[in-house]
Amino acid sequence: MKRITRRHLGRTFAMSAAGTLAAPAVAQSAPDFVWRMTSSFPRTLDTIFGTSERFQRRVFELTEGRMRIDVFAPGELVGGLQALDATTDGTVEMAHTGSYYFVGKNEAFAFGTSLPFGLNTRQQNAWLYQGGGIELCNEFYKEYGVYGLPLGSTGAQMGGWFRKEINTVDDLKGLKLRVGGFAGQVLARVGAVPQQIAAGDVYPALERGTIDAAEWVGPYDDEKLGLATAAPYYYAPGWWEGSTTIHLFVNLDAWNGLPDFFRTAIAAAAVDADMWTQARYDALNPAAIKRLIASGAKLRWFSQEIMDSCYDEAQALFNETAERNDWFRRIYDQWKPFQEESNFWFQVAELPFQRFVYGRTSNRG
Amino acid sequence: MKRITRRHLGRTFAMSAAGTLAAPAVAQSAPDFVWRMTSSFPRTLDTIFGTSERFQRRVFELTEGRMRIDVFAPGELVGGLQALDATTDGTVEMAHTGSYYFVGKNEAFAFGTSLPFGLNTRQQNAWLYQGGGIELCNEFYKEYGVYGLPLGSTGAQMGGWFRKEINTVDDLKGLKLRVGGFAGQVLARVGAVPQQIAAGDVYPALERGTIDAAEWVGPYDDEKLGLATAAPYYYAPGWWEGSTTIHLFVNLDAWNGLPDFFRTAIAAAAVDADMWTQARYDALNPAAIKRLIASGAKLRWFSQEIMDSCYDEAQALFNETAERNDWFRRIYDQWKPFQEESNFWFQVAELPFQRFVYGRTSNRG
Repeated sequence: MKRITRRHLGRTFAMSAAGTLAAPAVAQSAPDFVWRMTSSFPRTLDTIFGTSERFQRRVFELTEGRMRIDVFAPGELVGGLQALDATTDGTVEMAHTGSYYFVGKNEAFAFGTSLPFGLNTRQQNAWLYQGGGIELCNEFYKEYGVYGLPLGSTGAQMGGWFRKEINTVDDLKGLKLRVGGFAGQVLARVGAVPQQIAAGDVYPALERGTIDAAEWVGPYDDEKLGLATAAPYYYAPGWWEGSTTIHLFVNLDAWNGLPDFFRTAIAAAAVDADMWTQARYDALNPAAIKRLIASGAKLRWFSQEIMDSCYDEAQALFNETAERNDWFRRIYDQWKPFQEESNFWFQVAELPFQRFVYGRTSNRG
Repeated sequence: MKRITRRHLGRTFAMSAAGTLAAPAVAQSAPDFVWRMTSSFPRTLDTIFGTSERFQRRVFELTEGRMRIDVFAPGELVGGLQALDATTDGTVEMAHTGSYYFVGKNEAFAFGTSLPFGLNTRQQNAWLYQGGGIELCNEFYKEYGVYGLPLGSTGAQMGGWFRKEINTVDDLKGLKLRVGGFAGQVLARVGAVPQQIAAGDVYPALERGTIDAAEWVGPYDDEKLGLATAAPYYYAPGWWEGSTTIHLFVNLDAWNGLPDFFRTAIAAAAVDADMWTQARYDALNPAAIKRLIASGAKLRWFSQEIMDSCYDEAQALFNETAERNDWFRRIYDQWKPFQEESNFWFQVAELPFQRFVYGRTSNRG
């Protein structure tokens, strides 16, 4: 937001000494910028919290120590879901968060992360980086005084942990399910009771039976949160998140006030951490799903009836939202044809290749 | 390779003035480093040649003009397939090329790009960036005096353009097919006659009937090379390239002599251009496949018999190669379990999500 004062520097260095911050790899006495980034993700998740640390390190290296970003976990400065407000009002210069956490403010926040039955990671990256997505989202984010860039993807998520088997849409009725973002509205339309619960509180709620089911991300993260021991049925796919792009939000005045070089360094570090995150999930999840199955998790897939019903409800929700929300409609009108055209192409070469090779070469160990 | 002399600078600036080089966006009188990169790809392909220009620009920006990379198309300095040799012997400091073009030197060069029936883009990135792939490949590349980093992916490629329909393995016998890399050896085992032909010569060879079929990359690039007008049947998938990672090769002495900051800038610019390339292919191919179909291309898919036979021959080839080639075996022994474990996981959430959504939401327009 502003060139850092000596006093400010002293304070953040003191926090470093207390061990709450990752120490930068290179020592330099006076960076030109010391910025604060609040994360919506717990430090225990070395994937998604690790993304912000990777980003932090790359910015420091690429600026030869002239820009230092101090990363804070939820609660250290503000709560996890206050990440956007804190960036808008300048409490912090940056946040690492899910754009779709803020669909309660405006449903158009969903596009930056994922729509139910939306794009896969490759398509989402194509849309964001080369299909006008970053530019379109930022026209919208401007209303909230922030600039946004992708900062990590998870790939298709799991549908979560269920205490009992779910075979039909009727089985969803009254089911209390912890689920993130826009998907809760789709599930409510088929009779489920979506719950907003922060990451750290999911396990106890599921274990005690306060809720009947909970989704987080996928095998590696879910294992860390202990969800497998609280409910045995592990459903796939997480149709509400065929890809999930986490966002870097930067206070817009702070962003506009940065010299070009620092903006380029931030953008390059963000792409680097974006690639790092998806690669890391894809490298860690295969062994994690094996461990979960070996320790008793029962893999299940949502039935065709459930998939079809939820798909239809999702499309109806999108259309209704577009009717009353200008920003949602404006982005949706550009996004939807992109998806349809992309889905045709992905069925020509990518899907037949993958189906064949997975079928011939696969080992759960 | 070395700090640039004034004389050298003068020469490259003169070439710039002749209009053969993309002018850097920022002017600076004396970069610390002016390096030359030879590309194996023609300037007409704004995707894959554009990758090197994107990389060049990002390195320049991230180093505030202290490092300039001049990019040369095939034939401007050396031929497209001399890219590795020219980097090894220091004729250029860098190359942008397909590692697998050099399987004739050693089959282990295939892993950096793709193996037939190998990894998809996400899996390949996971293996390279987070699964030890970059490190393992570089132990091998060291034998050729180069350091390698990923610099662009294409996704699953098309199987190419055929003058007549191919339904059975018998139809492949005697078929003269232009195909890149290791795949030629698999096709030879089922009776085809693989041809090595440079990009610029593929169209005339196919049009005249000197060859019966030709593969290049996919809709957008193939359209630019005019292949559709030379043969009507467009086959999928390109099972020999489920993903294709293009490589940056750097002369090893030059790399080791660079200060850390410049190595970091190159690595970050390479990830940026890697992401850019796949996103660009994924953004451009959907409209290109529609245009190709509209102008008469007939989409076909390889039959189960052809896929199965080629898969079996590929596995036999890998095993035989591992028997007699230590480097191939060493990488394959680490790569193969990675693929098997990953393929199980990708069938749990990613594949069911994609199959369902593609089926419900797809439009060839």
